[in-house]
Amino acid sequence: MLENEISLDDAIRKALEEDLGPGDLTTEAIIAPESRGKASLLAREALVLAGIQVFSRVFKLLSAETAFEYFYSDGQSVPAGETICIISGPTGAILKAERTALNFLQRMSGIATLTKIYVDKVGSKKVRVVDTRKTAPGLRVLDKYAVRMGGGFNHRMGLFDGILIKDNHIMAAGSVAKAVSLARGGAPHTIKVEVEVEDLDGVEEALRSGADVILLDNMTPEMMQKAVDLVGGRATTEASGGINLGNIEEIAKTGVDIISVGALTHSLRAVDLSLEIVG
Amino acid sequence: MLENEISLDDAIRKALEEDLGPGDLTTEAIIAPESRGKASLLAREALVLAGIQVFSRVFKLLSAETAFEYFYSDGQSVPAGETICIISGPTGAILKAERTALNFLQRMSGIATLTKIYVDKVGSKKVRVVDTRKTAPGLRVLDKYAVRMGGGFNHRMGLFDGILIKDNHIMAAGSVAKAVSLARGGAPHTIKVEVEVEDLDGVEEALRSGADVILLDNMTPEMMQKAVDLVGGRATTEASGGINLGNIEEIAKTGVDIISVGALTHSLRAVDLSLEIVG
Amino acid sequence: MLENEISLDDAIRKALEEDLGPGDLTTEAIIAPESRGKASLLAREALVLAGIQVFSRVFKLLSAETAFEYFYSDGQSVPAGETICIISGPTGAILKAERTALNFLQRMSGIATLTKIYVDKVGSKKVRVVDTRKTAPGLRVLDKYAVRMGGGFNHRMGLFDGILIKDNHIMAAGSVAKAVSLARGGAPHTIKVEVEVEDLDGVEEALRSGADVILLDNMTPEMMQKAVDLVGGRATTEASGGINLGNIEEIAKTGVDIISVGALTHSLRAVDLSLEIVG
Amino acid sequence: MLENEISLDDAIRKALEEDLGPGDLTTEAIIAPESRGKASLLAREALVLAGIQVFSRVFKLLSAETAFEYFYSDGQSVPAGETICIISGPTGAILKAERTALNFLQRMSGIATLTKIYVDKVGSKKVRVVDTRKTAPGLRVLDKYAVRMGGGFNHRMGLFDGILIKDNHIMAAGSVAKAVSLARGGAPHTIKVEVEVEDLDGVEEALRSGADVILLDNMTPEMMQKAVDLVGGRATTEASGGINLGNIEEIAKTGVDIISVGALTHSLRAVDLSLEIVG
Amino acid sequence: MLENEISLDDAIRKALEEDLGPGDLTTEAIIAPESRGKASLLAREALVLAGIQVFSRVFKLLSAETAFEYFYSDGQSVPAGETICIISGPTGAILKAERTALNFLQRMSGIATLTKIYVDKVGSKKVRVVDTRKTAPGLRVLDKYAVRMGGGFNHRMGLFDGILIKDNHIMAAGSVAKAVSLARGGAPHTIKVEVEVEDLDGVEEALRSGADVILLDNMTPEMMQKAVDLVGGRATTEASGGINLGNIEEIAKTGVDIISVGALTHSLRAVDLSLEIVG
Amino acid sequence: MLENEISLDDAIRKALEEDLGPGDLTTEAIIAPESRGKASLLAREALVLAGIQVFSRVFKLLSAETAFEYFYSDGQSVPAGETICIISGPTGAILKAERTALNFLQRMSGIATLTKIYVDKVGSKKVRVVDTRKTAPGLRVLDKYAVRMGGGFNHRMGLFDGILIKDNHIMAAGSVAKAVSLARGGAPHTIKVEVEVEDLDGVEEALRSGADVILLDNMTPEMMQKAVDLVGGRATTEASGGINLGNIEEIAKTGVDIISVGALTHSLRAVDLSLEIVG
Repeated sequence: MLENEISLDDAIRKALEEDLGPGDLTTEAIIAPESRGKASLLAREALVLAGIQVFSRVFKLLSAETAFEYFYSDGQSVPAGETICIISGPTGAILKAERTALNFLQRMSGIATLTKIYVDKVGSKKVRVVDTRKTAPGLRVLDKYAVRMGGGFNHRMGLFDGILIKDNHIMAAGSVAKAVSLARGGAPHTIKVEVEVEDLDGVEEALRSGADVILLDNMTPEMMQKAVDLVGGRATTEASGGINLGNIEEIAKTGVDIISVGALTHSLRAVDLSLEIVG
Repeated sequence: MLENEISLDDAIRKALEEDLGPGDLTTEAIIAPESRGKASLLAREALVLAGIQVFSRVFKLLSAETAFEYFYSDGQSVPAGETICIISGPTGAILKAERTALNFLQRMSGIATLTKIYVDKVGSKKVRVVDTRKTAPGLRVLDKYAVRMGGGFNHRMGLFDGILIKDNHIMAAGSVAKAVSLARGGAPHTIKVEVEVEDLDGVEEALRSGADVILLDNMTPEMMQKAVDLVGGRATTEASGGINLGNIEEIAKTGVDIISVGALTHSLRAVDLSLEIVG
Repeated sequence: MLENEISLDDAIRKALEEDLGPGDLTTEAIIAPESRGKASLLAREALVLAGIQVFSRVFKLLSAETAFEYFYSDGQSVPAGETICIISGPTGAILKAERTALNFLQRMSGIATLTKIYVDKVGSKKVRVVDTRKTAPGLRVLDKYAVRMGGGFNHRMGLFDGILIKDNHIMAAGSVAKAVSLARGGAPHTIKVEVEVEDLDGVEEALRSGADVILLDNMTPEMMQKAVDLVGGRATTEASGGINLGNIEEIAKTGVDIISVGALTHSLRAVDLSLEIVG
Repeated sequence: MLENEISLDDAIRKALEEDLGPGDLTTEAIIAPESRGKASLLAREALVLAGIQVFSRVFKLLSAETAFEYFYSDGQSVPAGETICIISGPTGAILKAERTALNFLQRMSGIATLTKIYVDKVGSKKVRVVDTRKTAPGLRVLDKYAVRMGGGFNHRMGLFDGILIKDNHIMAAGSVAKAVSLARGGAPHTIKVEVEVEDLDGVEEALRSGADVILLDNMTPEMMQKAVDLVGGRATTEASGGINLGNIEEIAKTGVDIISVGALTHSLRAVDLSLEIVG
Repeated sequence: MLENEISLDDAIRKALEEDLGPGDLTTEAIIAPESRGKASLLAREALVLAGIQVFSRVFKLLSAETAFEYFYSDGQSVPAGETICIISGPTGAILKAERTALNFLQRMSGIATLTKIYVDKVGSKKVRVVDTRKTAPGLRVLDKYAVRMGGGFNHRMGLFDGILIKDNHIMAAGSVAKAVSLARGGAPHTIKVEVEVEDLDGVEEALRSGADVILLDNMTPEMMQKAVDLVGGRATTEASGGINLGNIEEIAKTGVDIISVGALTHSLRAVDLSLEIVG
Repeated sequence: MLENEISLDDAIRKALEEDLGPGDLTTEAIIAPESRGKASLLAREALVLAGIQVFSRVFKLLSAETAFEYFYSDGQSVPAGETICIISGPTGAILKAERTALNFLQRMSGIATLTKIYVDKVGSKKVRVVDTRKTAPGLRVLDKYAVRMGGGFNHRMGLFDGILIKDNHIMAAGSVAKAVSLARGGAPHTIKVEVEVEDLDGVEEALRSGADVILLDNMTPEMMQKAVDLVGGRATTEASGGINLGNIEEIAKTGVDIISVGALTHSLRAVDLSLEIVG
């Protein structure tokens, strides 16, 4: 289920207005208002589905008369050539909503599909593949939902639900310990404190300061191995920076708890889907 | 210059709220309100810049006290390692706006950079590389602006500023001629009529119906060559469907006027940029 | 059917809030919440109907329990004294929505009725009577829809779906040819280029520059006749400026393709309608 | 000064978006971003000015760099041919905002000019010419402001700041007395109670019920004279229904306190204004 | 019935977004989407109910599948321990909406309950206990509705539906008479004029100026008695400033018509309510 | 500094519209637009200040010409009779914004002042007094900011930045352990898991399940003491339910880490402030 449907409708309305503007010139002129039709949503390549409820909500917002029959649900793998769902309703509304609905679904399923590839590469269930805040502006909740559908996990949603102390914060505070103390002092007790470090000295300082999570930034697998050993379970460890499909397996083997991958949401490929009017 | 700044601010505010929510826990706790700083925006790879005004507007909306010195402007190629601009202002505001500003700029410059690669591949100035409506929901104006910055052109912005008659419209109207006539009859006289065809019979029918533009959908280069020859300048021709860097050159050689590429906006790679606090 | 219902609801909500503010003092105090009633919408003069779906949507947004029986639909001529539709539902909601619903319908039908008078005056089906951008702020889509219901056509919706090169653009570009070239180069290929001219030299220059449409601004019928002859079908011609019911017939006879009339949307008379509670 | 500027900006932004959509194709392509210019706002007919601050706010919202020199202010009569104000700023912004700014000003000044004609016709300063709730949806505050600028007065703004008991309310309450009592009981003590009556019996009943204001609906001048005499100053009297320039003088002579005229805001003629680039 | 439901939904959506943000971490992780449940709303102390329709609207907006059975309605006194209503629907939606729905209801019923105490203390039905504009920002319509449910009355809703002339206005106008005349001249005739005075001279001046209502500000009961006697029914009188449960009875005895109490909406205690899942 | 100013402006605009509606009848009629003035903000009782930036932002949004001189800042104690700040600017804008600005400030300072009383009562710096989600709908960020200004701390902002497992979640999951595991599995790793328990068995189960925080709900001080001892520092402990000024000291002595108090934001008394025009 998709969280916070309240603001989802706003995002869909915005996208529909962007595409419809003052009206669909072609459909309004040609399709009779009373025309009813059916359309099949087809997977033109193998994919992990994410966003099918967003997809159908687009049609629903344009016409309450549209109805849906689903053959797959979010998080499932869909083989190439399969029908994902069938839409029935006013032909005009189906044609007007088509592109907007597909734009949501192709992006979200693209994220889920890419995430699945990373997760499968890691292999171990003990290592979390997580996303970052590098999402498309305005689409963060959907982007991060898609990561979960692909078997990944979420890092913090934004600056408000996690503390991540970086270089600039440490410099401003004077020391890691001071920064951790200030951050913990100001934040709700429901929030953990994560500290970004770049070397083993940083790891030790973070541990001494009582960090809950230590982000190992741009380390080589060798240094990361040492860092993980040094932590020895006293904090959660996260690998970040320059992770790709070529090195994620090696990084996972260091025993790090979490691996964050920006590409999941900033450099995905939209999956190939099509909507075909079938009657 | 970026068009319609009125709605741009809404998109930026939405993105900032998404990231800031009820507040930046780390920065609010650690950075003193009176702290002032400078930050450099660095290109960590060669890229075509797009969105620098959007980037700086993000900071500006969060703090009117931020100021900017630019070394590159939109549409320019930036070599790896170069400083693109320097921001000065309240340190807190710079840190809070950083991710949101980068998310806009990395996506937009990613689109421009990819577009440039396609445009360079085509070589000829007579062939327009254009985008599609396959954009990120809510970001269409920015996505399409970025395409222009990369040397590409825009197809219609949405369903409201162009007529594109597809299969379903033709089926509903009864014939291509009837569909073209209905569409032209209902639309402002400022709008051209484009018809999508899949074979040479379709091309002939479209020509007879007085189409201004003919979209050659998913044709082989051979069939496309015949189609272009058949049209003989009596209408604008557009190649669409399955275009990629491997085949765009061959397609351009058919003499088609326009080549539309969905990947420009749905399957780009964000460019690598970083913001470094320098004082 | 009315285009882009998504933003229509916003306009209606805005209008309802404007009238209801914190509440209808009279109705809330006097009408029992459980009271149900019926109301007839009467044409108190002959008119062309436009906006009946907007009218009923106002009631619907205030109370989902309202229901409607229609005797006329948009675009039809309604004789004086006829019942246009019957509304049934909560009496309170009917009374609260009444004025707002009528304000939409009286304006829109006023536009359609006036347009019909102009169209009938022109007589010929080959000449399009079109509107302008001189609409009531916030109501453009509705104003222009009403023009179509009266048998008129739309000029461009806004600055985004048509190119109209005027004096200032030509001066800035240096020449008509340069302006046309710049405009065509920057715009989607789905958009035509129109050039405003004031004399026969302008017509010739526009033709040479490849304008798709030539706007003949404030010309006498005599000069306009010469302009139309000069164009000889090589471009679409539009008459504009100072058109009224006294001269439109003469202008139509010049053979111009399009006549634009600002008064359709800026100087109409609201039609006389009333809503009578009938039970 | 215009009231509630907070929501004014929303109305202007909405109107600008309506006209600009994703961008001004002509201006963006032709006018250089750095171009600066001046424009004169000219009265092409004699008029009463209303909305000059709204007019300039449109430009200001599009570009903070625009500046204004005013020669007339709201409420003043402007002879034909006069320059009302001069705008200087970025040429692109001036051209983009022009139509939207004029649409506001031409409507508002049209209302003020028409109101002035009615007020002058009445002659007496003791009789208020007032507007109704028959305004353009979304523009009520501006429409009613314009009425004041023309020398008229406002009736209630909406259903929330005045009580007007009509037929249907009386029928639901059982009697005029009961309706007045219910309304007064439910409303803030800052609000007067007005009752609509159609004959002299109604006037007597309203007086007995303690109405503060009595609306004399669609009465002949003769009956109205009797009604005014009957009231004898014990309540404020308002004439309403079918008032026009042909009969308002006669109605004013009955000694009625207030005359309401729907045409002021629903059937006005936009005044003729033009904006000319002067450098 | 609650007035202006149009903007009510906006307030509820805002409150839901505030609480849900990007999603309910606990409920989303634990409660199965298909789980259905029932919950009882219990009064944990005696109270006057206000806002039950707002309460249920919160659930409804989150899930259209929720249904309600009511045992009490707004304005009724509910003994401690009673069940007010039963909600059935998706368990997840019930848990997510719970806090937001209670926050509305506990505040509104707190206002109604406190108002009832003041009203009961006054005893006389001839004296109106009214609220002020000292409401929680964004919640004025709800706060004032709750006052009515507790047996109180409303003062003006805002600055737009009543005239209240205070010190600063009098000083600016030059005299009470001048201020009254200006205010009456500028406002709709549906609005009364109230003048704030601090002593008996002020009362006399207000009477002479034709004030409809006289606000007796911060007077001792003795002075207030003299003021009421002086007015002698020639205007409505309102007591204001420093009213509390200890002195309201004495003030009521002076024969003043209206007593305004800021505490009703700015210093209430939320009533104790709980929602218990019952199946 | 106040977090997320982006949405703060929306809340202020909403509050201003609520009070101003279509305009301030009194001020518009009486105060000359060119009038300039000064006003003093006075503390009419001792208080802890919170919201002074919100207060001045209200004036600023209505008129950019207003200026402020501050004598106290947020978090400071202000003795009765002191001047907190002086505002200068257009008299009309000051009068129009006054009530709205005070409504924000009186509520926020009321919360801070009440929080300070609780915090002082606790005495120990090792015990956090925290708020709850029982805030005024739409004002959560401001309510919680005020708590911090009074020396308190925040609990989670909403359902999105903390996990709090209650009865219903445990019942649905089958056991505390299962609920904790599900919640931790679904949430970002930046978020802690809190479990609500009602007795010592619950405490033990929560400890075994690895809860980060244990909420001791409605326990007697005796049982709470045992619970704290049982936990022995293995988790953070929070006391909740029925906390008031009479028992908070005793509860603090149990050694619990956190005490949450709903009354801070749902049952406060607005502090007494006044704005006096001084020139």
